[in-house]
Amino acid sequence: MNSTPRSTSPVSPQPWQRPNSVGLVEPHDFRFAEPPDQMVLESGRTLGPVDLRYETYGELNAARDNAVLVFHATSGSHHAAGYHTPGDRRPGWWDAMIGPGKAFDTNRYHVVCSNFIGGCHGSTGPASVDPATGKPYGVHFPVITIGDMVTAQRELVRHLGLDKIYCVAGGSMGGMQALEWTVRFPEMVQSAIILASTATISAQGIAFHAIGRNAITTDPGWHEGNYYGRDHPRRGLATARMVGHLTYLSDESLGQRFGRKLQERDRFEYDFSHEFEVESYLDYKGRQFAEQFDANSYLYITKAMDYYDLNGRSGGLAAAFGPSHAKFLLASFTSDWLYPSRQSKAIVSALMQAGNDVSYVEIDSPHGHDSFLIETERQTRVISSFLASVRQRRQ
Amino acid sequence: MNSTPRSTSPVSPQPWQRPNSVGLVEPHDFRFAEPPDQMVLESGRTLGPVDLRYETYGELNAARDNAVLVFHATSGSHHAAGYHTPGDRRPGWWDAMIGPGKAFDTNRYHVVCSNFIGGCHGSTGPASVDPATGKPYGVHFPVITIGDMVTAQRELVRHLGLDKIYCVAGGSMGGMQALEWTVRFPEMVQSAIILASTATISAQGIAFHAIGRNAITTDPGWHEGNYYGRDHPRRGLATARMVGHLTYLSDESLGQRFGRKLQERDRFEYDFSHEFEVESYLDYKGRQFAEQFDANSYLYITKAMDYYDLNGRSGGLAAAFGPSHAKFLLASFTSDWLYPSRQSKAIVSALMQAGNDVSYVEIDSPHGHDSFLIETERQTRVISSFLASVRQRRQ
Repeated sequence: MNSTPRSTSPVSPQPWQRPNSVGLVEPHDFRFAEPPDQMVLESGRTLGPVDLRYETYGELNAARDNAVLVFHATSGSHHAAGYHTPGDRRPGWWDAMIGPGKAFDTNRYHVVCSNFIGGCHGSTGPASVDPATGKPYGVHFPVITIGDMVTAQRELVRHLGLDKIYCVAGGSMGGMQALEWTVRFPEMVQSAIILASTATISAQGIAFHAIGRNAITTDPGWHEGNYYGRDHPRRGLATARMVGHLTYLSDESLGQRFGRKLQERDRFEYDFSHEFEVESYLDYKGRQFAEQFDANSYLYITKAMDYYDLNGRSGGLAAAFGPSHAKFLLASFTSDWLYPSRQSKAIVSALMQAGNDVSYVEIDSPHGHDSFLIETERQTRVISSFLASVRQRRQ
Repeated sequence: MNSTPRSTSPVSPQPWQRPNSVGLVEPHDFRFAEPPDQMVLESGRTLGPVDLRYETYGELNAARDNAVLVFHATSGSHHAAGYHTPGDRRPGWWDAMIGPGKAFDTNRYHVVCSNFIGGCHGSTGPASVDPATGKPYGVHFPVITIGDMVTAQRELVRHLGLDKIYCVAGGSMGGMQALEWTVRFPEMVQSAIILASTATISAQGIAFHAIGRNAITTDPGWHEGNYYGRDHPRRGLATARMVGHLTYLSDESLGQRFGRKLQERDRFEYDFSHEFEVESYLDYKGRQFAEQFDANSYLYITKAMDYYDLNGRSGGLAAAFGPSHAKFLLASFTSDWLYPSRQSKAIVSALMQAGNDVSYVEIDSPHGHDSFLIETERQTRVISSFLASVRQRRQ
């Protein structure tokens, strides 16, 4: 036969080796507020030392003016993009949006994401050791606010030597942190991207959080928060997560994905097993979360959200945005009933009243509140062009 | 002084003495399916004896053709109107709608309401004694369906000597029973009123129920359903009810009633007490329900709803209504996100396709799914005129 020798087919690259991946990344730790110079919280209580675990993607430029702060929500962490090991199956929580050529283009921007205080992924939270007792804080950890989280992030930004922030960005609770950055440090923030978020948690939002906290604190395994070193309140935490997870989805997306499909059977068995697929799915999501998350952190994080109320600040929402010179992009999603579009529109309206430069898009999506984690393509188009417009404005 | 003697002011009548009240009422019991003639359930299992507790209001006429069957939902009972004792503070659950001159006018109609099987207010349910063991059924009670509830009600109707039913009526799960009557016994039903209901529970509906069941069955106090005679899973049941109750309300009504109001304080205390009024309210509602309801009944009732799927019957919804000659009234409520208007509209559309006479009204209300228990005035207008039109049609 006259054929040319077959070339050896190249080994297909691992996910972390793909050209649009930030590749292998590692977390860093930053400590501040070493006693006696503790951090003073909004409650008046103090906290210290404070550890923040964070990751960065993309290079800081020579002018040190290309930093993008990305904030995570309840179920995220500092690990927003890339892989920790070559064998990692799952990348960071917003990997679809952060990387070379992606919405937050790491060829251009230096992206920073830190685990917020009160969390359970390496930053100081209720599972951390209280230096006063040598034991985990548990519920002796002080109640914190979105403002406290942002104040701690400000310390990290100082440590990284950043005076200007090109963009603050986040979805859901991450959007609250971004909003808070614009009102708390208006001189530093050049632009802000707020996705599927709200300036104020409504009574319904508080109520859903209260159910989750109730499920945790009525679990006998909670032991008033002192469960460290023994079993944890996994049942209560799983229930709390099931409630939370359901509020992140929509009737429409659940209908499309599950409808009334049965789980591994073709007719009703008339028992209390998980007969419907959606039951099995939700149960799995609850249990999975309960193995990975600290129940006390769940209490503190939902509480921080409950307190969030930019509308309630002196002078109202427009006054709160008064000092900001940032350019804003807001996006909401048609099927998000947790933080519905009207809450984003209220922010847009206040920003316009305050004379800010604001773009707003309502994205038609069936994926409910979770859309900001799912609607990659459409968000990428909007965010890329927004970030480009910030560049043009600056030039 | 020249004044006339002051007349003794009349003692103001007690609520049960008011002219539009059905007054003092008492429940009745009916037993059928005595072994060996047990009731055969949709699952193929059998149940017997079966007790139904019921109440009636207004007289049955000589023609025995003025009976209105009213069906209750999760939190109701056979006690739909009137008072059990002169000292009763709370009337039956739909007292605002049933009585002389009210929507279901007891001067005209003979209203019958029974506690459904699987319930815990006197009809046979999981807390009843299993004649095979002499102990409460617990989870050995057979899983039941809306169809089974209706089949049992058919026995009661036979016992009462009724061949024709003037109207079947209910809201929410009560509406499912009314729908089921029209497709199961089409020759008997002359009209049907379906409020805030659905022909099929969606994946989201199943998911909310699954969370409630999960909260109950993961409470260590549940003891696999064998808690009778000792403490019951009050924490799990309270959590389940909190979830359920929240789905009955709307963001709007919660905002109007509670907003972000604080509970007995004027500033945040930064602790895990119920700082917001809405937290305290929901906690109270959960605990109150847990003292009055049987946790196992909650499992069975939500399961019966999950199975409900008229859309899924052979030939679809329109075919299901084919044999019916009833006149229908459907009402949905703008802020009801549990059984939103589009689910009522789907029923209306199928009824029209099947050639039925159907009226539909979407009532603008902020009260969410619970609107059918709250919007007395507007429902009364619509229902009164609908029932009058049924009379005219018959004449």
